Amino acid sequence: MSKGRDDIRRLIRTIPGFPKPGVQFRDITTLLLDRDGFAAAVEGLSAGLEEKPDLIAGIEARGFVFAAALAHQLGTGLLLIRKQGKLPGATIAEEYALEYGTDQLAMHIDACAPGASVHVVDDLIATGGSALAAARLVQRAGARLTGLSFVIDLPDLGGADLLRGQGYSVHTLVEFEGD
Amino acid sequence: MSKGRDDIRRLIRTIPGFPKPGVQFRDITTLLLDRDGFAAAVEGLSAGLEEKPDLIAGIEARGFVFAAALAHQLGTGLLLIRKQGKLPGATIAEEYALEYGTDQLAMHIDACAPGASVHVVDDLIATGGSALAAARLVQRAGARLTGLSFVIDLPDLGGADLLRGQGYSVHTLVEFEGD
Repeated sequence: MSKGRDDIRRLIRTIPGFPKPGVQFRDITTLLLDRDGFAAAVEGLSAGLEEKPDLIAGIEARGFVFAAALAHQLGTGLLLIRKQGKLPGATIAEEYALEYGTDQLAMHIDACAPGASVHVVDDLIATGGSALAAARLVQRAGARLTGLSFVIDLPDLGGADLLRGQGYSVHTLVEFEGD
Repeated sequence: MSKGRDDIRRLIRTIPGFPKPGVQFRDITTLLLDRDGFAAAVEGLSAGLEEKPDLIAGIEARGFVFAAALAHQLGTGLLLIRKQGKLPGATIAEEYALEYGTDQLAMHIDACAPGASVHVVDDLIATGGSALAAARLVQRAGARLTGLSFVIDLPDLGGADLLRGQGYSVHTLVEFEGD
């Protein structure tokens, strides 16, 4: 049975107060457990691509899930964008802002050939800080970024608009407001 | 072009001295970047299954990659086994030994229906501590564990033998000795 965006949205569980009071956490684990829901999310990501890239890049850790399934569906390779310190080879890194302080994302400097086309995937876009860091990494590595896709958009936090304002192509499947 | 186990093994890069001196780190990121190599690894994991389970369980974080692609290939749901503190809902946890100290893996207590069949996937088995913790979590949740699969086995560290000795079905794709 094929599922649509309403089903994907319904399968995402909201958990109030995680990781701290006041946050409405959008939990994709319940979507993943539903085989039709998981398949529909991957299909939705695939359908949103403007072209088939050479590589799908996934952002650690929940982004790995959707990026790996999408890469498998498309028959492309998979590029891992990880928290700084996790990759064993020579890396480039980009800092991004958290609510308090900063964090860094990294990728292997030799992960993609110059000019390779890369599409970035994560589970959720909020303020867009980590997504923007991932986009910059891919571009610094000499690849051609074809766009960024997310299962969940929190439009009140403005991340998708921020990225679009900088010229990036952004595709999202479902929205949750009030965050 | 279909690739075999020799190709999978060749595509895994060895990086000496990560994360510390004396360790030969087996880096799967180079396998993932090769679309045929990645597809061959997922196909190899699929071919090793004795039955199609209800759920594929992936262990954070590299295990998510292979588990997600395998679940997508099989058309099953995906269960995330994460580091303690990462899952937003009510969890059960299992401790396992590290070289110095301990760590914990957790899963949502309501992640699978009683009697559901679950197959655990990770990228690598070394001493088997995290794999055994994952197996126990699945069983404590009331599921039927159909087995555990790994892309890489480090047989000198004895993890696969440890699990088999406890009655678990274990499948691995390639071995690296001398670790």
